[in-house]
Amino acid sequence: MAEHTYAVIMAGGGGTRLWPVSRKETPKQLLPLLGEETLFQSTVSRLEALFPPERILVVTVAEQASVMQEQVPAIPPENYLIEPAPRGTASVVALAAAVLKRRDPQAVMAIQTADHHILNKDLFNYLISTAIAVAEKKYLVTLGITPTFPSTGYGYIQQGDSLGGDYKYPVYTVKSFKEKPDEATAQLLLQSGDHSWNSGMFVWRVDTILAEIERQMPDLFNSVNEIATAWETPERNEVLRSRWNGLKSQTIDYGIMEKAERVAVLPAGGLGWSDVGSWDSLFEVLLPDMNGNVATNKQYHLALDTHNTLVYSATDERLVVTIGLDDMVVVDAGDVLMICKTDQSQRVRDVVEHLKKHKQEKYL
Amino acid sequence: MAEHTYAVIMAGGGGTRLWPVSRKETPKQLLPLLGEETLFQSTVSRLEALFPPERILVVTVAEQASVMQEQVPAIPPENYLIEPAPRGTASVVALAAAVLKRRDPQAVMAIQTADHHILNKDLFNYLISTAIAVAEKKYLVTLGITPTFPSTGYGYIQQGDSLGGDYKYPVYTVKSFKEKPDEATAQLLLQSGDHSWNSGMFVWRVDTILAEIERQMPDLFNSVNEIATAWETPERNEVLRSRWNGLKSQTIDYGIMEKAERVAVLPAGGLGWSDVGSWDSLFEVLLPDMNGNVATNKQYHLALDTHNTLVYSATDERLVVTIGLDDMVVVDAGDVLMICKTDQSQRVRDVVEHLKKHKQEKYL
Repeated sequence: MAEHTYAVIMAGGGGTRLWPVSRKETPKQLLPLLGEETLFQSTVSRLEALFPPERILVVTVAEQASVMQEQVPAIPPENYLIEPAPRGTASVVALAAAVLKRRDPQAVMAIQTADHHILNKDLFNYLISTAIAVAEKKYLVTLGITPTFPSTGYGYIQQGDSLGGDYKYPVYTVKSFKEKPDEATAQLLLQSGDHSWNSGMFVWRVDTILAEIERQMPDLFNSVNEIATAWETPERNEVLRSRWNGLKSQTIDYGIMEKAERVAVLPAGGLGWSDVGSWDSLFEVLLPDMNGNVATNKQYHLALDTHNTLVYSATDERLVVTIGLDDMVVVDAGDVLMICKTDQSQRVRDVVEHLKKHKQEKYL
Repeated sequence: MAEHTYAVIMAGGGGTRLWPVSRKETPKQLLPLLGEETLFQSTVSRLEALFPPERILVVTVAEQASVMQEQVPAIPPENYLIEPAPRGTASVVALAAAVLKRRDPQAVMAIQTADHHILNKDLFNYLISTAIAVAEKKYLVTLGITPTFPSTGYGYIQQGDSLGGDYKYPVYTVKSFKEKPDEATAQLLLQSGDHSWNSGMFVWRVDTILAEIERQMPDLFNSVNEIATAWETPERNEVLRSRWNGLKSQTIDYGIMEKAERVAVLPAGGLGWSDVGSWDSLFEVLLPDMNGNVATNKQYHLALDTHNTLVYSATDERLVVTIGLDDMVVVDAGDVLMICKTDQSQRVRDVVEHLKKHKQEKYL
């Protein structure tokens, strides 16, 4: 079976949630945020234990594809599927499934995002292996993340009964998908014990997901089939462009998963998963010293009476001295210096909005 | 009388108390810490209301003299007295007095330091005029600063009886000079009501101070007289160097003032005086916005939920974003970034010591 398994990395996103380090032109998956490797490189490394590079596909935009090919030369060029424009994750999944089905009708695909971080790689492999086994039984499998706080930033998956079967990891049917809740609801979902965060990681056979797409989004199904038919012909770009532009933008969760049949969930605790969506969540997955501090450029950080502080430094020889700091994030990023109380790091969004509004795009 | 009054600016000091902006090579008097002018330039501007540039003398070291001449071209080159090496303020005062006495035996000299800040220039002029009138009566006059907190960083002057006389400002005899106190003593001195900080500003006739020097430090008296005799001859440098090197280093306070006769003090409140000896004392003399913030580069500071914070920026187009900061000093100085809780800004000394000890002199 293993030779029919593929990983599909979704890597189209831009975004400035980790501004001022991530910028319009350099989204966070292309940056070495957590060490030597970029998030994209770590994503590939993590997958390589299960998938050889020739069975890893990447769906991205043209501007990012060339940088990615430099960062991970092992993935063959034909495995990069280029989106002409963003049309949501439903379109990405459908395109990848349709193209893959023509290459290998028995393919099982594991959908990953390029810009998440996972600490526990062994558990990850264990989960993906189990998810592949479940997907073989024509289930749409989602990886859930056991919530650690009442987040309003993620969708939730409610688990139902155990799926039974002889799997290496507990698997449940899915009772419902829930969109990002308000705070009170998030608190209830956290306490319920049967809800996981929707991580955006899915595993399924290409024929299973395409059947669901045909049932729920027939226009999308027809478009990606036409594109896939033209894929290995000289008409590929023309067909791709014309059909893709006609698609409406839709997420896989809302467009497919919420009303899908035969959905299963593997709720994972202890994965050390983070979507690295803000400075405080980045901070959580870094290993602090005995004072709770993290410095990306340790030999250039001089800390006096400083605790629980992240010093993220993009400049090599610049000395950063902190005296009397608690619970702060310091980001020294070339033309921008940001100093932020950790629990206010979500307000980076406000700063980005402010800069847009005041025509200071050069900092974005 | 006015044509016999001179200002003598002592400007020899180096120092890193405002590190990382002030460095070994660029002491704080040469830096525009508080606006467009450097502290040295402000010192001269402040004095110019009473002293024309040809009656302002500067005692400094060779390395600083050329920068000062560029900063204030109005002061004639012959008014720069160059110390071959640091020998304390007693030596500086004695040299200036001896040289000046040969130029003008009736001279009254007002000793100033180049690196202090005074907000209330009108009151300053008022005090100096009064001090000159008192000095004419052969008093050694000191300007005291009414304490605003129990500082352990300054010496104190205890006032005695009113001097009487028809002066424009109250003048007192001096009962005693006290060296830098410990905290408990500083508290008592603050509460006493009859103690001022020793500001290092003095006014006296050159013959009065030279007579005191002759009485208390005869070696110094003889040396500076020999230097002054050679001053306008080709032997100046040779005599200066040989006599100066033989001097022992001594402060004017300890060497002369503590045991001097006929000492008077003008205790000044409301002068807005600061020795700008640390980041928090610099902060005190800057005008904050409605949130208590000061940014030296206002249009490049974006502040969200930030209060009582100083952003001192040496880089022009670098955007500094602060989110959720209270009572902080941020100093963005080229190769060093320092972020410091304001009430811990004295610990800059520890940082400087650390850098010396760890052979990181390039940052000093």
